[in-house]
Amino acid sequence: MKKTIGIDMDGVLADTEALWLTWYERDYGVKFDKSIFTGVREADAFPDKSAVLKYVFTPGFFRNLPVMEGAVAAVKQLSEDFEIYIVSAAMEFPLSLFEKREWLAEHFPFIDWRNIIFCGDKSIIATDYLIDDHCKNLDYCKGMPIMFSAGHNASFNHHTRVNNWKEVLDLMEDQKTYSEALSVK
Amino acid sequence: MKKTIGIDMDGVLADTEALWLTWYERDYGVKFDKSIFTGVREADAFPDKSAVLKYVFTPGFFRNLPVMEGAVAAVKQLSEDFEIYIVSAAMEFPLSLFEKREWLAEHFPFIDWRNIIFCGDKSIIATDYLIDDHCKNLDYCKGMPIMFSAGHNASFNHHTRVNNWKEVLDLMEDQKTYSEALSVK
Repeated sequence: MKKTIGIDMDGVLADTEALWLTWYERDYGVKFDKSIFTGVREADAFPDKSAVLKYVFTPGFFRNLPVMEGAVAAVKQLSEDFEIYIVSAAMEFPLSLFEKREWLAEHFPFIDWRNIIFCGDKSIIATDYLIDDHCKNLDYCKGMPIMFSAGHNASFNHHTRVNNWKEVLDLMEDQKTYSEALSVK
Repeated sequence: MKKTIGIDMDGVLADTEALWLTWYERDYGVKFDKSIFTGVREADAFPDKSAVLKYVFTPGFFRNLPVMEGAVAAVKQLSEDFEIYIVSAAMEFPLSLFEKREWLAEHFPFIDWRNIIFCGDKSIIATDYLIDDHCKNLDYCKGMPIMFSAGHNASFNHHTRVNNWKEVLDLMEDQKTYSEALSVK
C-alpha cells in the first residue's frame, strides 16, 4: 500500500502571498515584494493591517490564487509513488469551500474528490506525511511534518524544511528510497 | 485528553430518507414510508431510480434536511465527555459544501469550525470512534466503528449497531465507564 501525503493548499499549493501583493497594489497603489512577509504574521505584513483579513473574506480570493511554482508537476510526480490527500483548513472561511473545490478541479484535475479534505483542526488527519506552512498544523500532525517555507514561518526551525516544490521532490525521493530499503530487509 | 468521536452527517445527523420521501411525494404524487429503503441501495428504493441522485444534486437538498430525531441534544451531551468532529463525505457533491456548512451553523451552532471535516474517503480520519451509516466508511476507519441504522445497511451486521441517538448515548456511556475503569487501574 502506498504511503500517504497530506498537502496543504494556501501557501503550499496556492501562492497566497502573491495575490495579497497584487491586490494590495491594486487597492492601495503601493508595490511590495514577498520580503514584507518575512518573520511576521501574515495579517501584520502590510501597513494596513486589515487588508489580509479583508481579502480572505472577499469572494473570488481563493478562486483566483496563482498556483505555487512547480506544484502541479511535483504533485503529479509524487502521486505515482504516494497516495496524495489535499488537506485544507477551509472551514475557517465558509465562502472559500466551493471556490477551493473549483480551484482544485481546474489546476489539479487528477486529484480525485475522495482525496480532498476541507477541515479545521488537522490533528485528526492521519497521513504518513503532512506538507504545510503552519506550525499550528505541523506541531500536532500524526505523521512526519514537513514545513513548506513561507515568510511567516521563517523563524521556526523545529520541522524539516522545504523551500520549494523541487526540494519536496528531493525529500520524498529520499523517503521513498529509505522505505524501500526498510521493506527489503 | 478527551477521546474523539467522528460523526457522519447524511443518514446520522440529517434525515436524508425523510426528505427523499417528502420530495418524491411532491414530485410523483406517491407517498411511501421509510420501509422502502430497507435492504436496498438508497438510489434503488423508489420506482423512479433516477430520483435520489437527482435530489442530491438539487440546490437546497442538503440545506433543508430535517435533523435526525434526538441528534442535537445527544451531540450536545456527548460533547461534555468527548471531542466531537463532524465528518461528512461532502466532497462528492460540490454544491453541498456551503449548504452543509450553513446547515451545521443553524442546527449545531455549538460545533466549532475547527471540528468540521468535509472529505471524500474517510480512511485517513483518525478519531477514536466513528458513527456512520455506510460500511464503505466504517470498514476502513481507524477507531471503533459504530453503525447508525439506515434502511440501506439493514443486512450488514459486522459492526456495533445503534438504532437511534438514545442508543448512541447508552453505548457511549458504557465506553466512558470502561475508559474510566481502565485509567483507574
